[in-house]
Amino acid sequence: MHAVAIQRGEEAPALLEVPFPEPEAGQALVRTLRVGIDGTDHEVIAGGHGGFPEGEDHLVLGHEAVGVVEDPNGTRFEAGDVVVPTVRRPPNGDPNGYFERGVADMAPPDATLERGIDGAHGFMSEYFVSDAAYLVDIPRSLAPLGFLVEPISIAEKALEHAFASRSAFDWRPESAVVLGNGPLGLLALTLLDDMERTYCVGRRDRPDPTIDLIEELDATYIDSRETPIDRIDERHEPMDLVFEATGFARHPFEAVSTLAPAGVLALLGVPEPWAFEFDGGMLHKDIVMNNKAIVGSVNSGPHHFEAATETLSRYPEWFLDAFVSGIHPLSSFEDAFVDDETTIKRAVELSSI
Amino acid sequence: MHAVAIQRGEEAPALLEVPFPEPEAGQALVRTLRVGIDGTDHEVIAGGHGGFPEGEDHLVLGHEAVGVVEDPNGTRFEAGDVVVPTVRRPPNGDPNGYFERGVADMAPPDATLERGIDGAHGFMSEYFVSDAAYLVDIPRSLAPLGFLVEPISIAEKALEHAFASRSAFDWRPESAVVLGNGPLGLLALTLLDDMERTYCVGRRDRPDPTIDLIEELDATYIDSRETPIDRIDERHEPMDLVFEATGFARHPFEAVSTLAPAGVLALLGVPEPWAFEFDGGMLHKDIVMNNKAIVGSVNSGPHHFEAATETLSRYPEWFLDAFVSGIHPLSSFEDAFVDDETTIKRAVELSSI
Repeated sequence: MHAVAIQRGEEAPALLEVPFPEPEAGQALVRTLRVGIDGTDHEVIAGGHGGFPEGEDHLVLGHEAVGVVEDPNGTRFEAGDVVVPTVRRPPNGDPNGYFERGVADMAPPDATLERGIDGAHGFMSEYFVSDAAYLVDIPRSLAPLGFLVEPISIAEKALEHAFASRSAFDWRPESAVVLGNGPLGLLALTLLDDMERTYCVGRRDRPDPTIDLIEELDATYIDSRETPIDRIDERHEPMDLVFEATGFARHPFEAVSTLAPAGVLALLGVPEPWAFEFDGGMLHKDIVMNNKAIVGSVNSGPHHFEAATETLSRYPEWFLDAFVSGIHPLSSFEDAFVDDETTIKRAVELSSI
Repeated sequence: MHAVAIQRGEEAPALLEVPFPEPEAGQALVRTLRVGIDGTDHEVIAGGHGGFPEGEDHLVLGHEAVGVVEDPNGTRFEAGDVVVPTVRRPPNGDPNGYFERGVADMAPPDATLERGIDGAHGFMSEYFVSDAAYLVDIPRSLAPLGFLVEPISIAEKALEHAFASRSAFDWRPESAVVLGNGPLGLLALTLLDDMERTYCVGRRDRPDPTIDLIEELDATYIDSRETPIDRIDERHEPMDLVFEATGFARHPFEAVSTLAPAGVLALLGVPEPWAFEFDGGMLHKDIVMNNKAIVGSVNSGPHHFEAATETLSRYPEWFLDAFVSGIHPLSSFEDAFVDDETTIKRAVELSSI
């Protein structure tokens, strides 16, 4: 069967012929419908993140997938069920404590593989197998957009943790800013609709499809070339919640001062090492004297996938039309990996329901 | 009546004659029993923290108090009730949203006064008045040590927030390190007795009363002159919880790498501005990829005082004997302000029950 993979030493993904997967006990065989692409895929392709499966020279890409159960193979599924796979798998197939306790998303990098990212093949192949425990079923009506469940779930988890950090008191957030107008940032914005006022930071000129979307979501676009992160509180207002989805290493440190008292900063970006000077004394004092919190978040678990499915079911048509920039057949998969300013979210279609 | 106060331009507290306080409607008159002293008092005396009440040239010290209701003045108290006052009061007597919602401890510095610290007289006077809403009653048997309720409550709140930040998943912490062997650090250590393994960091040589106490609490003493904060994970183990009570501005940055995956760093210190270089990229990535959290915490609210009262009631005699270094009569109040290595916690006694 065909799969889209990055090969050792190559700079772009290629279409490979790979063996048809055989489900083992406890695994279902899934026919892949669509697989979305995000910044992590581009980092994996560039070699800045993740790695090949042990002993192999290629990595099948794709961690944002939706498929149809082809062979339940004795698992709880029925043929035809629409499923979305979670991303993390135990190294060597030997579940450690994180997997046993159902908190694989909280595992450190060395206690997990990530399909399509780090050490395990992804889902961008015509079929894939997965332990049934790592498949979340979604309504059949959501099948065409089920590849959005995984990226939404990333934002769901980060916000769950951010709100948990403020659960020891009567927190009444009104303002939130998302740093980054990539797909993750825009999805986060859709989850903040309980906030009175929302903002999203980018570095783009109008006309731009993400700026249009930000404004259609009733949020205010902030151009960080005009308003640095640590001035957002002055130019707009102190923010009860800051959601960082840029991966720019200075942003967390600059964002603390933009937080309102008792506010929380959720970090999701994954920068490279970068040493710089900063007033650590002021930062430390600000965090303490204003009861601020910072939570890092990566990956997501089954209940975040369930919340994301619920979220997906509520998205209006106009949002989905604007958010999904293109669905590309396997024969022209390269078009789905285009990363320009006309793209918000693209997916590869491997089969249809 | 007598009060111990710091006067503008002076470097040491003095015994002053101040007017006897008259309770207004809603306020009770309290006869002060004992008032404890901590690092914040020394910072206030040195001028590094807090400030004088508006238009005045002295600040009555003391925010760790216990007293007996002398005149309930129509409030819910009865004469003879033993009470501990909380520290924060609304500026201009006009409760803002933080006070109205019962979350004064989450207010920013400009939305609150702090008795004995910032803008409002403290409790180190023979009598004080307080709105009944800011008095927490404690059992009469705890009266002699009731001055410990406030400092314990500071640790209770920080730990409540730290645990809240990890409440979105099945967190099973086993290891904790307290940075700082001052009274706050030692009190925090007593609250961590559910942890399998605890550690406390100081910079002192043996013999030392705090090291003895750390070891009697079954914790391991770590000398930071031998083991830097960012090496604790290698020399001992990664820590599920780090409780910072040093106020040293580099500690938060060094402590993140010592955290175990999914761990939390509680910050309580209040450093001065200090710019230095650190690898912000590594720090950012570590927080994200390992789902780490940081929570700042200052002050405490009535329910933390209640938890602290419960904690105080459980302390064994040996701990209290070791922790309280001295109770000093008002006539020799200066002895209570001694800040040397024989001192853990000292208090001034203004009257007896």
